Amino acid sequence: MPGIVYLVGAGPGDPELITVKGLRCLQAADVVVYDRLVAPGLLEWARSDAERIYVGKSRGVKAMPQEAINRLLVERARQGKVVCRLKGGDPFVYGRGGEEAMALQAAGIPFVVVPGVTAAVAAPAAAGIPVTHRKVSASVAVVSGHDTSPTADVPWAVLARMGTVVCLMPLSQLEGLAERLLEAGFGPDTPAVAIERATLPEQRVVEAPLGELAAAVRRAGLEPPTTVVVGEVVRLRRWIAGERTGPLTERPASYQVP
Amino acid sequence: MPGIVYLVGAGPGDPELITVKGLRCLQAADVVVYDRLVAPGLLEWARSDAERIYVGKSRGVKAMPQEAINRLLVERARQGKVVCRLKGGDPFVYGRGGEEAMALQAAGIPFVVVPGVTAAVAAPAAAGIPVTHRKVSASVAVVSGHDTSPTADVPWAVLARMGTVVCLMPLSQLEGLAERLLEAGFGPDTPAVAIERATLPEQRVVEAPLGELAAAVRRAGLEPPTTVVVGEVVRLRRWIAGERTGPLTERPASYQVP
Repeated sequence: MPGIVYLVGAGPGDPELITVKGLRCLQAADVVVYDRLVAPGLLEWARSDAERIYVGKSRGVKAMPQEAINRLLVERARQGKVVCRLKGGDPFVYGRGGEEAMALQAAGIPFVVVPGVTAAVAAPAAAGIPVTHRKVSASVAVVSGHDTSPTADVPWAVLARMGTVVCLMPLSQLEGLAERLLEAGFGPDTPAVAIERATLPEQRVVEAPLGELAAAVRRAGLEPPTTVVVGEVVRLRRWIAGERTGPLTERPASYQVP
Repeated sequence: MPGIVYLVGAGPGDPELITVKGLRCLQAADVVVYDRLVAPGLLEWARSDAERIYVGKSRGVKAMPQEAINRLLVERARQGKVVCRLKGGDPFVYGRGGEEAMALQAAGIPFVVVPGVTAAVAAPAAAGIPVTHRKVSASVAVVSGHDTSPTADVPWAVLARMGTVVCLMPLSQLEGLAERLLEAGFGPDTPAVAIERATLPEQRVVEAPLGELAAAVRRAGLEPPTTVVVGEVVRLRRWIAGERTGPLTERPASYQVP
């Protein structure tokens, strides 16, 4: 009798932005296999006797190779365990969840996909930016910033035609990203923003025209994980966030609970 | 002392795909203002004495105009109420949540944005399709299918360069959508899929090459809400979903809980 694997999206950072279903799977798990981007607070909701296996990067230590993670999930499920594979954001948005699902399907292991709130939408929201807005943007492109070379598997040349561009995890590549987008026809004055630790209390936002974003982010010393948003929707931020500095996913400081 | 408004994403359909934070806001609310796309099961979690206000379309009755919804939220908050504005999917992805947030900010009403799981990601996932996948697709375009005329505010001409295209709510416009995408350079054999009532037990999936999708969907009699996915990632479905017919967000029928 094999167990089951839940491929669960942990959400963008704030532990309460996991789904109700994801939390139930986490609480039911015999084994929790988790990544670097999962909020530490989430693991407190796992059973105290659950086996916790960290497969992300740490200082000087590489992440577990994807093949080994796939084997680990199959092996624990074959032992009859309920496995929660907890991934930052959504498992199927740059999460390699598709590879894990294929490995489980090939091995005949029952599995469930529990979608999560992706940072591609929640990070802009937490900074006061809707990725779509009537008369401003009716389309969104989501790309990865892991490879910002001109030959990367990203259609740089057409991104300037999309209403909004969201780039996940581009921090070390931010100069390259800005260069590609400027080459693609974005004006250097295009509104742009970088959001660090979105939805967490320590969230930081750096807003600057695209041509100056990389320098502004370097000056501010932002660190990963960071989400970059480029497009006219960024201008809405002042009308939505107003004077607020914390994440819009939390109560404003001005609101005193009675 | 004004109340507060929570702009909450209800998720893609399955009531358990609301976030933990969204559920807390719903349970705390004096007033729940909700749309057509919100799963009925969700409202059962509201307080029994909460005022429930439906602002979506019904048979022969138009939805409440956006301006009136904005006024309603401001007015109830000014009465000191805790208001939960519950929207299908995510409030900032074609949800007009940006307009509501701007109205609340302009009126000086405290508000919180609670992002949700968007159907743009969860509908494909529930059908066994990751929107990104290594060596298959590294970029995603999300567009709305409400206006599929050539002059719509959607960059049709460049979509064929994006790895994956997801179109939300296009059912009545599916012929137009397919026409635009074929004009844009997608081959008629491009893998495509339409997913009805994604993540719910009654989910239905129609897979066909792009050139035949509209006819296949008409034959199957799909109804809104439907999500369309176009791109090579659709081919992964057979390797991820295998023989499963229900949503991958639920336990497979083959899995017998002991």
